Amino acid sequence: MDDKDYRIRTDLALEARESFPDDDVEIKGVTLDEDFDEENNIRITTVVIKDEAGAKAMQKPMGTYITIEAPDMKDSSEDYNKPVSEHVEKVLKKLAGNLLGGEVLVVGLGNREVTPDALGPYVVDNLFVTRHLIREFGSEFKEKNKLGNVSAISPGVMAQTGMETLEIIKGIIKETDPKLIIVIDALASRSVRRLNTTIQLTDAGISPGSGVGNNRKALNEETLGVKVIAIGVPTVVDAGTIVADTLTKYMEENGFGEEDIFKFISEVNGTQVYNMFVTPKNIDELVKQISYTISEALNSCFSGSVFA
Amino acid sequence: MDDKDYRIRTDLALEARESFPDDDVEIKGVTLDEDFDEENNIRITTVVIKDEAGAKAMQKPMGTYITIEAPDMKDSSEDYNKPVSEHVEKVLKKLAGNLLGGEVLVVGLGNREVTPDALGPYVVDNLFVTRHLIREFGSEFKEKNKLGNVSAISPGVMAQTGMETLEIIKGIIKETDPKLIIVIDALASRSVRRLNTTIQLTDAGISPGSGVGNNRKALNEETLGVKVIAIGVPTVVDAGTIVADTLTKYMEENGFGEEDIFKFISEVNGTQVYNMFVTPKNIDELVKQISYTISEALNSCFSGSVFA
Amino acid sequence: MDDKDYRIRTDLALEARESFPDDDVEIKGVTLDEDFDEENNIRITTVVIKDEAGAKAMQKPMGTYITIEAPDMKDSSEDYNKPVSEHVEKVLKKLAGNLLGGEVLVVGLGNREVTPDALGPYVVDNLFVTRHLIREFGSEFKEKNKLGNVSAISPGVMAQTGMETLEIIKGIIKETDPKLIIVIDALASRSVRRLNTTIQLTDAGISPGSGVGNNRKALNEETLGVKVIAIGVPTVVDAGTIVADTLTKYMEENGFGEEDIFKFISEVNGTQVYNMFVTPKNIDELVKQISYTISEALNSCFSGSVFA
Amino acid sequence: MDDKDYRIRTDLALEARESFPDDDVEIKGVTLDEDFDEENNIRITTVVIKDEAGAKAMQKPMGTYITIEAPDMKDSSEDYNKPVSEHVEKVLKKLAGNLLGGEVLVVGLGNREVTPDALGPYVVDNLFVTRHLIREFGSEFKEKNKLGNVSAISPGVMAQTGMETLEIIKGIIKETDPKLIIVIDALASRSVRRLNTTIQLTDAGISPGSGVGNNRKALNEETLGVKVIAIGVPTVVDAGTIVADTLTKYMEENGFGEEDIFKFISEVNGTQVYNMFVTPKNIDELVKQISYTISEALNSCFSGSVFA
Repeated sequence: MDDKDYRIRTDLALEARESFPDDDVEIKGVTLDEDFDEENNIRITTVVIKDEAGAKAMQKPMGTYITIEAPDMKDSSEDYNKPVSEHVEKVLKKLAGNLLGGEVLVVGLGNREVTPDALGPYVVDNLFVTRHLIREFGSEFKEKNKLGNVSAISPGVMAQTGMETLEIIKGIIKETDPKLIIVIDALASRSVRRLNTTIQLTDAGISPGSGVGNNRKALNEETLGVKVIAIGVPTVVDAGTIVADTLTKYMEENGFGEEDIFKFISEVNGTQVYNMFVTPKNIDELVKQISYTISEALNSCFSGSVFA
Repeated sequence: MDDKDYRIRTDLALEARESFPDDDVEIKGVTLDEDFDEENNIRITTVVIKDEAGAKAMQKPMGTYITIEAPDMKDSSEDYNKPVSEHVEKVLKKLAGNLLGGEVLVVGLGNREVTPDALGPYVVDNLFVTRHLIREFGSEFKEKNKLGNVSAISPGVMAQTGMETLEIIKGIIKETDPKLIIVIDALASRSVRRLNTTIQLTDAGISPGSGVGNNRKALNEETLGVKVIAIGVPTVVDAGTIVADTLTKYMEENGFGEEDIFKFISEVNGTQVYNMFVTPKNIDELVKQISYTISEALNSCFSGSVFA
Repeated sequence: MDDKDYRIRTDLALEARESFPDDDVEIKGVTLDEDFDEENNIRITTVVIKDEAGAKAMQKPMGTYITIEAPDMKDSSEDYNKPVSEHVEKVLKKLAGNLLGGEVLVVGLGNREVTPDALGPYVVDNLFVTRHLIREFGSEFKEKNKLGNVSAISPGVMAQTGMETLEIIKGIIKETDPKLIIVIDALASRSVRRLNTTIQLTDAGISPGSGVGNNRKALNEETLGVKVIAIGVPTVVDAGTIVADTLTKYMEENGFGEEDIFKFISEVNGTQVYNMFVTPKNIDELVKQISYTISEALNSCFSGSVFA
Repeated sequence: MDDKDYRIRTDLALEARESFPDDDVEIKGVTLDEDFDEENNIRITTVVIKDEAGAKAMQKPMGTYITIEAPDMKDSSEDYNKPVSEHVEKVLKKLAGNLLGGEVLVVGLGNREVTPDALGPYVVDNLFVTRHLIREFGSEFKEKNKLGNVSAISPGVMAQTGMETLEIIKGIIKETDPKLIIVIDALASRSVRRLNTTIQLTDAGISPGSGVGNNRKALNEETLGVKVIAIGVPTVVDAGTIVADTLTKYMEENGFGEEDIFKFISEVNGTQVYNMFVTPKNIDELVKQISYTISEALNSCFSGSVFA
């Protein structure tokens, strides 16, 4: 851990990228592209971590990270779900391609009993699950009804199961042999502003519990042997991060040096804010809404009609 | 299916046994023992199906089925939980022996969203899960704190996951290697009187969904490769059964012959009561209470103190 | 109670009307009109009970009962919600008129913990509640955003609160002074076929708990002093009813006289099926879907745009 | 608002008292007493705000505030519930006296859908409600079974109902005429250390939503016309508070003056941490456990046996 580490405590590649002081400087092994949907005020940013050097600099595994930022989602009506959902669908098709038409296992990570961590289970609740129907009625039935082949599970968190999510999902994959895994999880952002307005999709996998709990063994193509797309929404900020960021800003403005700042931040991280998270007071409505947006995108992706 | 079949539509071996007209006649391959706890008005009945002939007659797999009937449970206070819980614990130890001190996976079958089917998930919610703690802190920690080694999962039903429960559990077993599986499920009884007052424990395994949904592939030692104890509580009566039983009784009393009765029952079974179940109006309280009784028994079983 | 009474155990005026043996005979004080939406296979039946004679014959209070029957709702996709929702909205406007634009209190009756009884609470969960916003930001805000003035509560059932729903709602009305009460409740039907495919709207009020529990004091214009519209969906059949109906049919077909039938039904009603209900195994999905249909209709009704 | 204001952002009278720099100095109109249960490591602190001067200094209404601090509650087994529960019962009897034997309405404030705010609804879920039974079976039944006369409601929060909690409860009181109101709510603490380990009981009433949402009109003897006991547990820290406190500590240690500190804190409060709260990652288990502790205390209090 070097002295820049305190800057990067986020599950969003976008924020990791932003943490570099000079925005314009190119980071080796990392590319950044932006797209903007003016009509709906939605920004799509693609960060690609191309090699080990980039992975080290960003402290994230190699892969493509696409972030959909929709700041109006927080206050908006149901109608706004539609354009956001369509962007999610588009990105998903870009990352997964034809695999969406085959056997897909959707995994809703997180603890249903802790509101900001319930995103994954809520998405799974609204999925149109079909694998058992196709097994019962055959592939003709699948084609006639333009169905995907979808199975899904919300395994719970390790404090509830006593098992690593990796163990559970690996076992299920062995028995059911899906060709694509889509993992949904609540993430930690560094910025209050991004909470519940941002959706990150990546083919780089995910570490269960990084949003609200401790890091667990990663779910990715390497550990699971199947392509993995992770969809994440920041619903919390780590309490230590919010304190550290506010302080850093203050100290920088008041002329403290980097060494002083780092020393202080280290102290803060040792205190009682450890294992605490920050979340908005109306998190119940926000999580319900955004999980609906994502499940609509998935249901639409899986409907066979989209695969020529 | 022979013409006696309509008599036996129950998940309880006890009721299957009772369905034979002459109570005293010995059924080949089936033994029956009764025990009575007078103080608490709790009856313990042990049915052993010893061979294939018994299995065929009873339409249940071979094995030991122990039923705890506690009729006072329905109206009683919290205090009554204790003696019932202690009987469950005693029977569990009889069936599972030393395996309770080793690695145990508890599976809560059923659909959390349908009240009478939520028994399994509710039991799992109240379990003291420890496998991850022992993996983190070592076996010394386990012994010092007299802990069991418990993992648990409520996988949901096939309409939610698209997967057979058997597939999910088989996969998890491969990855986590437990030495005993305890499966909890809501059952269908034939009798309204037994609902939520009866607990059946068996080493013969279980067919998920036989209580409220369709039969699924069985979970048992043969399919899972590990010893399986199933704990079930009847929380519903099949709607067809209740109609058929009331009618049969009426027709018998009014002198109809067996042929007439069978013909009529067959007609009833083809009607719209199919896929309907009967359950009491206060099923929420009853399921909450009995799931607590069972989880207390399990938590007590797993606490290392009981293993000399 | 006369000897025809066993025929009428239903919360649906439509079924009460059907229970009269001769369909064509006019019942004094009761009118019946039918309308049919062929495109969507939706039947709208209006029963008006005009006077005390009609009320006595029908065993329902005087008033207008409009029933929307949408048999395809059971198996259908989300798209089917829309036409059903639009019919609900149309009927609601017909019964409530301009009152929908004023202060409205929506009451979700029923027990959230018992799946078929959770309809009312689920509808309230999805309502767009605005009364507090209008009180904070003023009537200009209301008009600019074309909002209704909506408050809502799911008070729970008497076993949870120890209070009559009538007491709770009366008290709230005194303090908040709404001009219209809309009450949502799960009902008991007599017919399995109508479960979760039928919506009844009436200005005659409702008796909480008649669907799943015992009758409680009625909520209607007389007891509350405010106009009351009740929206009900049959989600259960009384277990006694299903047994009685099947038996009656059988006995009639086999030449039994009315006296015999009545005698037998009376006996059945004294048995253990009392306080039991019958409901489909996938009741969780059905209740979720139909509650969404109703909340969409309400949200659309309340949006000011519809009031010229 | 004077320049000391930023020090006191807490629902706990105990913390308001502690915020005064010199612990020993007597504050006019405020008394402080401490008691310690060594065996169970439980501290009971009684703060009495005796007059308007005290109320102004403490920024809390006049009344008695008794705080039970049980730091071991966080990590402890179920067995620890008992001594804590007994202290709650003792304090409750001290504050409410004979009123506990009469008609009591328990109000569970908070939003069931936001985990740290669900304390009140969870306590109500576990209450033994009896008012309806006594109304049905008479006072003889009450005495024979040594029952209290308990009604209860979880009205939801204003964003769900569109109504002030005060309006709802006032209305219900008018109709049901209880002699004592017990209000349960989640609170905001200033200190992470006190979260879920502290229970405050007071006869000074409560402002709904002060824990997680905005302040609402107070529930107290003056507004309701009936004696009110409030039971609160801090489950969150306001995010602004945690940042401000950490910063204040840092700035004080680094020699900043009070003016500088106040100026900075004011800036922080204007930023995006507004309407955010901080809570532990395992808040689901903590809230479940402590709500059980409180409901046990209440159920025990209401059982008639304790009233000679």
